[in-house]
Amino acid sequence: MRAAHGARVAIQGERGAFSHEAAVRLLGQDIQVVPRPTFDSLFAAMPEGAADYVLVPVENTLVGSVQRAQDLLLESPFPVVAEAVLPIRHHLIGSAGATLESVRVVESHPVALAQCERFFAAHPHLQRVAAEDTAGSVRAVVERRDPSRAAIAGRWAAEVHGGVVLQEHLEDHHENYTRFLLLGRAPLDGAQPDTLSLVLRLHHQPGALWHALEPFARRGLNLLKIESRPIHGRPWEYRFNVDVQTPPDDVEVAAALAELGSRVDHVRILGHYPSAPRTGLQPALAS
Amino acid sequence: MRAAHGARVAIQGERGAFSHEAAVRLLGQDIQVVPRPTFDSLFAAMPEGAADYVLVPVENTLVGSVQRAQDLLLESPFPVVAEAVLPIRHHLIGSAGATLESVRVVESHPVALAQCERFFAAHPHLQRVAAEDTAGSVRAVVERRDPSRAAIAGRWAAEVHGGVVLQEHLEDHHENYTRFLLLGRAPLDGAQPDTLSLVLRLHHQPGALWHALEPFARRGLNLLKIESRPIHGRPWEYRFNVDVQTPPDDVEVAAALAELGSRVDHVRILGHYPSAPRTGLQPALAS
Repeated sequence: MRAAHGARVAIQGERGAFSHEAAVRLLGQDIQVVPRPTFDSLFAAMPEGAADYVLVPVENTLVGSVQRAQDLLLESPFPVVAEAVLPIRHHLIGSAGATLESVRVVESHPVALAQCERFFAAHPHLQRVAAEDTAGSVRAVVERRDPSRAAIAGRWAAEVHGGVVLQEHLEDHHENYTRFLLLGRAPLDGAQPDTLSLVLRLHHQPGALWHALEPFARRGLNLLKIESRPIHGRPWEYRFNVDVQTPPDDVEVAAALAELGSRVDHVRILGHYPSAPRTGLQPALAS
Repeated sequence: MRAAHGARVAIQGERGAFSHEAAVRLLGQDIQVVPRPTFDSLFAAMPEGAADYVLVPVENTLVGSVQRAQDLLLESPFPVVAEAVLPIRHHLIGSAGATLESVRVVESHPVALAQCERFFAAHPHLQRVAAEDTAGSVRAVVERRDPSRAAIAGRWAAEVHGGVVLQEHLEDHHENYTRFLLLGRAPLDGAQPDTLSLVLRLHHQPGALWHALEPFARRGLNLLKIESRPIHGRPWEYRFNVDVQTPPDDVEVAAALAELGSRVDHVRILGHYPSAPRTGLQPALAS
């Protein structure tokens, strides 16, 4: 599953972010990263011709859905072509010469700071500072060369920006994974697709969701995930983002989709792609 | 639907926040507001004996679920006793003497800033600054008495902190509502309960959600909302937060619940409470 040499992949955040690591896992080391500051500018990268792929985090096993990313995904004209799942490991990263003892201020994305409560409870003198993203806070700390400042981020960010890991594994929960989707123009070569992502808009009547799920349930097709998202301009109405596990023989899936069409107001296929392994995951950089 | 004189109601954020307005709508002007900086400290207010009620935003019609609030709600031992729905209207609020022309810096909660894109596009010289909450940014602006600074918040925040509304209705979308739940020790006097909030943990097998919804669908009971939330420590497994509309005759609901129990791994009732009106809403302060 490797793209053409030098494929341009847009990510939200800076080089060294968890998204960068996920992109390398899917497309190899030769990619050109196109950093984008926000999710809106990230999804604009393909229509603008600035990227061949968009890599976007959609879900974390502690926080839940990445809401803005989910909404933009539903509006994107490009299909989902692959999935990646990364274990999220937070490390304390400083500039050369810094030590755990010299640090007074720790900056990172608020979600990363919140996932390291035990570390901060054990080091109450440390001041937390919210930053735009994890990798960007590592870059800022390394550029400043101030031994009293450190960042919390993944090991990849330290490697990319020349930071020093001062303490490993600050995360409170080890069962912390983020799931990413890759949008592209065509399927990647490689594994057989086994995950189908759909968006459903239901009829507004009692039993509508149950009625919509029946074609899958009756065929024993496994729902991996179902997520409601509000419809803008129609308060208290929802779209459902549904992931279905598909067997190698797609005949049952095609029949379920055909039946689904007559049971809902609208259905759209976001993509059919190979799932990523979800257990026994190791960071790409095992050093 | 009025509580005893001087009931203590905990809210996240400062006096003048949208939560404060929702609390007054449910319990009257005589309440004592107990401000809490975070959702975690908000939910701790009742167990600590610092509050008689907790008022918490759970959903916005543009942004979707308030994720941390949803998770804490599921863990709370106190039942949901009431619901409030507020229209979210954003105004530019300055200190006495400020005008739209004198303002250079605008601060507010990032979600509020993001919901006023058209205003900022029309006034590109304005610098945006992220703040902890809307009402707190009004208080800060009023205390500083600097005509170059303003905040974005609801009218209630201007009234409470003595700010001046410099421009009304900055919000991009008028169909912008936030839904709040009130946790208490006992039902409020007043309207008949018609909304049942449940948490379901499903068996881990194909068709589990469809099987769980059938007792409601077959009886024509209307699902108002269904939301999946990750289960911490069990990656890729979810709880479902379900709201069901209940008819005046609860016999059908009791039968559906009895049947549901044998179809899911676990079910918990969060509360049975009267719904709030959802259309034709006006801000409590119509001035």
